[in-house]
Amino acid sequence: MEPRISIITLGVKDVDAARRFYVEGLGWKAALEVEGEVVFIQAGHGLLLGLWSRERMVDDAGLPDLAGMPGSALHAPMTLSHNVESAAAVDAVIAEAVAAGGVLVRPAAEQSWGGYAGYFADPDGFRWEIAWNPSLTVQEDGTVRFS
Amino acid sequence: MEPRISIITLGVKDVDAARRFYVEGLGWKAALEVEGEVVFIQAGHGLLLGLWSRERMVDDAGLPDLAGMPGSALHAPMTLSHNVESAAAVDAVIAEAVAAGGVLVRPAAEQSWGGYAGYFADPDGFRWEIAWNPSLTVQEDGTVRFS
Repeated sequence: MEPRISIITLGVKDVDAARRFYVEGLGWKAALEVEGEVVFIQAGHGLLLGLWSRERMVDDAGLPDLAGMPGSALHAPMTLSHNVESAAAVDAVIAEAVAAGGVLVRPAAEQSWGGYAGYFADPDGFRWEIAWNPSLTVQEDGTVRFS
Repeated sequence: MEPRISIITLGVKDVDAARRFYVEGLGWKAALEVEGEVVFIQAGHGLLLGLWSRERMVDDAGLPDLAGMPGSALHAPMTLSHNVESAAAVDAVIAEAVAAGGVLVRPAAEQSWGGYAGYFADPDGFRWEIAWNPSLTVQEDGTVRFS
């Protein structure tokens, strides 16, 4: 697994309110948005900040009770995403992370948005989503483009 | 405030255990570390992943009860840092964020590590640290260097 963070997604109570702060208040530009559901903002070279409904985030990742993980951060409403170039790479990276001491949270599967993704947690319970998203590309200058 | 994330710091229970996972397990390289206290790993162009004692993170940022912020994420053990080029810029960015609807968490002040920093929270209580760190520079190729 390469040291790369593609998206930091914050689970928010009200996507419109979070959008007002970041997009209208701070003047940051949305790279992709679905009204009332999710907003992605370019926040670095090849890096997106995501604002997503906290409830949907929980539905998507699941919040299993992990034995042996007291004080887990798994309930923190935040996900770090690591994008890779193929579905096979998703499986390989999750296997590598689990072998390194990570905990499988949700096995990789095909996603409604057209990609393939799964989750593991680090020793503190921080969630990493490993994803192949064929509609997301990083340009040479670091701009993330959705097609 | 420009759309830029400089550091994602995870508050961990045991820095050595987190280091074992990320550095020894996944093979990621530490850009700076103080044994048992903090580890910074390059995780993107100009982007660091920080592993820091959760207790020290709480001591540093403080966890005030924020009126009108029920269900706040302020207790999530994670901080997004936005580095700027001067102490004056720290004050300006925090003022801008508060004017945009952010909540002041800790006013900016000189830091023991030689810089100047303060915190605000977004509408969901996610903490942003605005920092001037004279010993941290981003090279043209995105590498973060500590001097």
